[in-house]
Amino acid sequence: MIDEFALQCPIPLDNNPTIQMGHGGGGRMTRELIERIFVPVFANEALAPLHDGAILPPLGGRLAFTTDSFVVRPMFFRGGDVGTLAINGTVNDLAMCGARPLYLSAGFILEEGLPIRDLWRVVRSMGEAARAADVRVVTGDTKVVDKGHGDGIFINTAGGGVVETPLTIGPLSVRAGDAIVLNGDIGRHGIAVMAEREGLQFESEIASDCAPLSAPVQALLHASIEVHCLRDLTRGGLTSALVEIGETAQLPFRVQEEAVPVRDEVRGACEILGLEPFSVANEGRFVAFVPSAQAETTRATLGGDAAVIGRVESLGPDPPFVRVETSLGTTRLLDLPSGEQLPRIC
Amino acid sequence: MIDEFALQCPIPLDNNPTIQMGHGGGGRMTRELIERIFVPVFANEALAPLHDGAILPPLGGRLAFTTDSFVVRPMFFRGGDVGTLAINGTVNDLAMCGARPLYLSAGFILEEGLPIRDLWRVVRSMGEAARAADVRVVTGDTKVVDKGHGDGIFINTAGGGVVETPLTIGPLSVRAGDAIVLNGDIGRHGIAVMAEREGLQFESEIASDCAPLSAPVQALLHASIEVHCLRDLTRGGLTSALVEIGETAQLPFRVQEEAVPVRDEVRGACEILGLEPFSVANEGRFVAFVPSAQAETTRATLGGDAAVIGRVESLGPDPPFVRVETSLGTTRLLDLPSGEQLPRIC
Repeated sequence: MIDEFALQCPIPLDNNPTIQMGHGGGGRMTRELIERIFVPVFANEALAPLHDGAILPPLGGRLAFTTDSFVVRPMFFRGGDVGTLAINGTVNDLAMCGARPLYLSAGFILEEGLPIRDLWRVVRSMGEAARAADVRVVTGDTKVVDKGHGDGIFINTAGGGVVETPLTIGPLSVRAGDAIVLNGDIGRHGIAVMAEREGLQFESEIASDCAPLSAPVQALLHASIEVHCLRDLTRGGLTSALVEIGETAQLPFRVQEEAVPVRDEVRGACEILGLEPFSVANEGRFVAFVPSAQAETTRATLGGDAAVIGRVESLGPDPPFVRVETSLGTTRLLDLPSGEQLPRIC
Repeated sequence: MIDEFALQCPIPLDNNPTIQMGHGGGGRMTRELIERIFVPVFANEALAPLHDGAILPPLGGRLAFTTDSFVVRPMFFRGGDVGTLAINGTVNDLAMCGARPLYLSAGFILEEGLPIRDLWRVVRSMGEAARAADVRVVTGDTKVVDKGHGDGIFINTAGGGVVETPLTIGPLSVRAGDAIVLNGDIGRHGIAVMAEREGLQFESEIASDCAPLSAPVQALLHASIEVHCLRDLTRGGLTSALVEIGETAQLPFRVQEEAVPVRDEVRGACEILGLEPFSVANEGRFVAFVPSAQAETTRATLGGDAAVIGRVESLGPDPPFVRVETSLGTTRLLDLPSGEQLPRIC
């Protein structure tokens, strides 16, 4: 699958082919990694001075700031790798704040013995994902831990963006009557990683939905949608997103199960694996809470498989439950999983 | 040494006393960690909404942005712990950009089986260090990796600050004739960690110099010092800082060995361990490159053991070496270590 020639790893593979402790020592070997791998891939003016940090021009609005670490296992899977996730995950957290993502930091914790070829492949994915999301990696750090005290590559990215909208986007802005709009089919990222980890073969290949969400969110804002809340569906999937927003907003939600797009192959894989599609991780999916009058414009602006999946109810005598109406006419309640359904999924 | 009562770990120690995979799953257990440990310690308005990121007011100047991961082993040592380092390390990188540090993110990668008591102790240290440095931890993330694929606690912090000075502070602003001023004695952090790791006892106890450097840097700027370059002495110590700045600036430096403060107990420990004090890590030390006419004001503003340790020469026919004049009248050249002298020192 991999075009080895195109990889063109700039550190000769017959010379120091694996990461050694010295690559994290802050000396010549660290400098070699930075100058041969990180700087060429992330090439930009802010990174070039190689100072202790990046100095960036003043922002024209409020600052959005977020962070995420990525420990997915295995580090390569269908539709992406830990590098793709590390860029898109943080881009998406900024997008969910209503911010236009601008700058990322990248902190690598590498395990001694990691093939430098793998690092190169991941960093190259990060470069491609950053260009696709129109963000720049402007500062970074590399540490190496001894073999058996890490797991290949852990990446932390933090991100800064500018909030240009005057809206206050967050769970506390959700109102009774809001429509809940989902931007596409759910469950593919979690199933793609599980398939890779367990060596499973499904009839159709399922690829991660990993993608940057800044462009669709900016499209909603430019279409004058009065966005109340945004949340990407990562760990814990649609279930966690809805339950957490409901608890913070102290409002009950009602969702139509049939309205939530799930591909047949994902549904089939979930049945085999004993998983519930609503709780499986995604990396390119989000819900938007918008006034019901703008539900259809929101759906049309997002396009593709986007769907209006439910609404926010008024708070009655009951706690703010999330109710799912099934195609059989029954109702079930969503709740956060107590523990870990799919460890190390992102 | 630890006042167990004062720790008051808010998760009962007879119930889930160690970190489990579920603490990283994004469900109830993750939420418990966030609500019982992180939010109370880092308490601030930006963190409170528990959204995907923090929304912060517009900055009155350029944005400084930096990141660092911390993998020090052991995680507790005399004078600090991985949490103290994680706050001060990133505060100091911002300070070295001439920025006033404002906001930090905190990304935790925890190993399954970590005693929650240890996490609580580290987070509490972070809270104290953040208050001492006058910065706020406004956003965070927690991942858990399975036992044997991590090492207790890895922490990434990224930081944002505002650059209020019009100066361009960095290696490219260094000029021939500049004085090099050091803010205190060197080598204590590296020796303190090595002593803890190796179970060494020295005659006098050596504690890490870990400290925030934002206040001394702001003091220099408020004293109208025309600061050309700042660099904190972390991995690779004074040696790496000087060699890297010299290479980037393409200028030679001359340093008087006798002018560099090294405590007797550090010198003794270095002799026993076969280390060179100039290359040992620090976490509260930095060099400032300033016009020679302001060298004495710089030294006096920094106070304590601060010392003028050398000067920047004009570029002659030779490469931009860093020359150290010893008390014996001889001269030696500094160079970056090729590999790793002291692994996992920060």
